[in-house]
Amino acid sequence: MTTSFNGINPSNVKNICCIGAGPIGAGWAAYFLAQGYNVTSYLHAPNEEPSLRSLIDTAWLSLEALGLAEGASIKNLHCTSDLAEAARTADFVQESAPEDIQLKQVLYEKLGRLVPDHIVIASSTSGLQMTDIQSQCQTPGRTVVGHPFNPPYLLPLVEIVGGEATDPVAIQWLADFYKVAGKAPLVLKREIPGFIATRLQEAVWREALHMITNDEATVEDIDFAIVNGPGPRWAMMGPCLTYHIGGGEGGMAYCLDQFGPALKLPWSRLEAPDLTPELRERLIEGTDRQAGDSDYATLNRQRDQGLVAIRNALEEINSE
Amino acid sequence: MTTSFNGINPSNVKNICCIGAGPIGAGWAAYFLAQGYNVTSYLHAPNEEPSLRSLIDTAWLSLEALGLAEGASIKNLHCTSDLAEAARTADFVQESAPEDIQLKQVLYEKLGRLVPDHIVIASSTSGLQMTDIQSQCQTPGRTVVGHPFNPPYLLPLVEIVGGEATDPVAIQWLADFYKVAGKAPLVLKREIPGFIATRLQEAVWREALHMITNDEATVEDIDFAIVNGPGPRWAMMGPCLTYHIGGGEGGMAYCLDQFGPALKLPWSRLEAPDLTPELRERLIEGTDRQAGDSDYATLNRQRDQGLVAIRNALEEINSE
Repeated sequence: MTTSFNGINPSNVKNICCIGAGPIGAGWAAYFLAQGYNVTSYLHAPNEEPSLRSLIDTAWLSLEALGLAEGASIKNLHCTSDLAEAARTADFVQESAPEDIQLKQVLYEKLGRLVPDHIVIASSTSGLQMTDIQSQCQTPGRTVVGHPFNPPYLLPLVEIVGGEATDPVAIQWLADFYKVAGKAPLVLKREIPGFIATRLQEAVWREALHMITNDEATVEDIDFAIVNGPGPRWAMMGPCLTYHIGGGEGGMAYCLDQFGPALKLPWSRLEAPDLTPELRERLIEGTDRQAGDSDYATLNRQRDQGLVAIRNALEEINSE
Repeated sequence: MTTSFNGINPSNVKNICCIGAGPIGAGWAAYFLAQGYNVTSYLHAPNEEPSLRSLIDTAWLSLEALGLAEGASIKNLHCTSDLAEAARTADFVQESAPEDIQLKQVLYEKLGRLVPDHIVIASSTSGLQMTDIQSQCQTPGRTVVGHPFNPPYLLPLVEIVGGEATDPVAIQWLADFYKVAGKAPLVLKREIPGFIATRLQEAVWREALHMITNDEATVEDIDFAIVNGPGPRWAMMGPCLTYHIGGGEGGMAYCLDQFGPALKLPWSRLEAPDLTPELRERLIEGTDRQAGDSDYATLNRQRDQGLVAIRNALEEINSE
């Protein structure tokens, strides 16, 4: 730990520097503009500006449909190819440069000098570890991974994790800031490859690739199965709460005791861990915490209402 | 093949026999009633009727919100514990008895005698194979797996697969009938454990269990990550088309060439298959077929519109 981080109040952030003109960098810029922030986009080359603005214009249609913050406007976007200028006035930096570790290390060495050291720098990286990214930065305490889901202007999740030299206070600051900015931050306990959501997504993708390789399913079969089966449920309820409801009045405990043995069945190429008493307990306690005061009938009704809303909403779109 | 199946016109089905009073049996009964069919529910014991009716009443709230077919009414439900009576007038049988292979074998032996042999009998089984279920049935040609997703009255998917003695014509009949009845049928190329959707779902679940076991994520983290990350996308677009869009103008080919090496990274406990030229080609051809005439910008816009609709719909529910 080389710094003792002392950031500004997350509610006082006004100016955000977004690095990168690709779909992620542009997506973040559009999102922050829609939330009413001033955004300075740093472009590697000035000729990237038209493509950046076109991506932002597309995102804006959706952001308007979701509702803009007071004073939000694309006019609050400023583009520059001068990193020092982009960095100078930023209250927060969201970096979405290409996924190249050497490129990022050089960039963080520069940012470490140019950005005042009480300002948090978040990386959108999906595959690199902050410990590596920050290795040449002189002020690494405030550098944190803030990994969004594509498109960043529509999916709320941001996974947050520090590197070895990251100050835990900066991690908490970032979670607080994203919350103020309307995102759904998830702080990881430690660096794991692929974070949490990408690991889950990658498990689906790899199982799908096995089925397509073995001629058990076509590309269309895979997508059709997801969209018409578990997909709509996952838009509103994760796998744990889903199984909790699947267990009826008996909840997760009943579900595990009933279907636990199925973990040994070849229902996926992924081997399951042993369902130890400890794991059983964690699952039951965790879903109990999630369910809170809601009994089975209430959770069941909430799930159904959500699914009806999703189906009706998608049908309206499709019939337009 | 012991029969040469010659079914009635799927559009002429009027009377449906639903076997089973649990959430799946009741869910099917509610769904078919809402589609305007007459339903005879076979109950193992007459005292199951109140619980069956309570499950149907709950489902009905959602089915009304989605829109009932003309003439649809819960009054068209008839309950009986006389299997011969339930079977006699059925134009179609949906069996959702407990997942016990011996119980199902005995049941199919009886159904094989009681149900006229031009009538299809579909099993809701999620874990058993039709080859085993039909082994004691004298007329197995018309017995087929028709595996729904829970709740069957809200999720459209039904996975269809025959056993060794199933007539392919009966499989096609079942797909045609489910389509007429408003479901989304998916015919599998062959029997594989867990079918397609459950295999994908199970891959997520097992990866989640590993993370919870290793203290890398809590139960709440898993659900939070899905619901705020890939979940909403999966409600409207499968993983293949998602990556096709993720590849921008270059589509799936660009995506595979760029991110293919990531399959070797430890982003999930599930090992990926080799990305052979054949697999690459299948993925590109399959997503091309799915995309049809839609270019990148159109697909991108459709995805965004769907996500906005889902988010607004869920927000409306949550604010009630």
